[in-house]
Amino acid sequence: MVFYFHDILYNGQNFANATSAIVGAPAWGNRTILADLNHFGNLVVFDDPITLDNNLYSTPVGRAQGFYMYTQKNTFSSWLSFSFMFNSTEYQGSLNFAGIDPLLNKTRDISVVGGTGDFFMARGIATLSTDSYEGDVYFRLRTDVKLYECWKLVN
Amino acid sequence: MVFYFHDILYNGQNFANATSAIVGAPAWGNRTILADLNHFGNLVVFDDPITLDNNLYSTPVGRAQGFYMYTQKNTFSSWLSFSFMFNSTEYQGSLNFAGIDPLLNKTRDISVVGGTGDFFMARGIATLSTDSYEGDVYFRLRTDVKLYECWKLVN
Amino acid sequence: MVFYFHDILYNGQNFANATSAIVGAPAWGNRTILADLNHFGNLVVFDDPITLDNNLYSTPVGRAQGFYMYTQKNTFSSWLSFSFMFNSTEYQGSLNFAGIDPLLNKTRDISVVGGTGDFFMARGIATLSTDSYEGDVYFRLRTDVKLYECWKLVN
Repeated sequence: MVFYFHDILYNGQNFANATSAIVGAPAWGNRTILADLNHFGNLVVFDDPITLDNNLYSTPVGRAQGFYMYTQKNTFSSWLSFSFMFNSTEYQGSLNFAGIDPLLNKTRDISVVGGTGDFFMARGIATLSTDSYEGDVYFRLRTDVKLYECWKLVN
Repeated sequence: MVFYFHDILYNGQNFANATSAIVGAPAWGNRTILADLNHFGNLVVFDDPITLDNNLYSTPVGRAQGFYMYTQKNTFSSWLSFSFMFNSTEYQGSLNFAGIDPLLNKTRDISVVGGTGDFFMARGIATLSTDSYEGDVYFRLRTDVKLYECWKLVN
Repeated sequence: MVFYFHDILYNGQNFANATSAIVGAPAWGNRTILADLNHFGNLVVFDDPITLDNNLYSTPVGRAQGFYMYTQKNTFSSWLSFSFMFNSTEYQGSLNFAGIDPLLNKTRDISVVGGTGDFFMARGIATLSTDSYEGDVYFRLRTDVKLYECWKLVN
């Protein structure tokens, strides 16, 4: 299952269409501009649309909500934990993710640590790749979800 | 297993009995008042008592510690990750939770991603419901924990 | 498998060799000094070297990246979620952790909620102990990782 999610970071001027905001920063940073040292210590909360193709304007099948942090001083790396909350004819329910995302690698694997609804008790791997990166304001992550544990709830 | 946990948010005036505090906020917010836009971007750390009934003053069986964040601009939704740390005659050990919590739904499912002690290697679902909500200062969450993976550690 | 990771907290004067930084604080705190009330509400992002012995200057086998928060007002307790990202001849891949860490206990168990690469789909327990604690600037955690679920990916 391949999904795309789209992150537009608040930069002081894009209040209406921003989907994420810096909410934590180190002592040398602030909450409108990503900090020096590869943004180490910046914490961003997001509410990003999920689409089935790589078009920001396609009808979302759900929302990706959670946070990412920049976690390395000497290169770009992030750590993230979030959920996909689906609300579409194809999928109902949620998937929960956590893991490290060394951004400069072409692909990065994180864990699917659980799920609810159609994804009841799921576990697996999500392979992330940066599908687009436009300065510090917009990026799009391709997420290839592979579930190795799936459960069926029998009522 | 049904538990209740009780959250009293620090608001600048309730230092002694607050059980949680805003520690992150977007650029348009602060750390004593929940922000506009459905509190999007507020990050709250909590240390909440867990009780077996819905009475704040019942003897706690443990503490719920971790954080929640408000993760949606256009409605009330949160994302949380926390542990139940039990210390009672009934239970010893911890349960670890993560997931999305769309607050306006009557019930919401999150993941039990692991456990320790009496809950060694547990996995399951916790169904949350808001049992009480008093302005921005107090809420009580009913948590119905259903474990579908349980392990027995044989020494 | 036993690992050590080493945390040097930024305190306003150790910019060059700090491996972590306060990025969130309650209203009564700031981002260069850990707050009163057992640091309740402080959120710290870290990028700590992992070594196989307890020597800070041993060659690292990877990085521990993620965050910890102080989560109790009346004693020292923290909650953490992070990854070990290995990049050595012994190990490639990552392990993802989450759980509560009551610091004054001699040993504390948290959950291994997933893994990637050599640790594909791992689950287990990590037993933490404080191997060294030097004021608020340096600590070293011994981490004994016990995996009870291991998968082999057959290509």
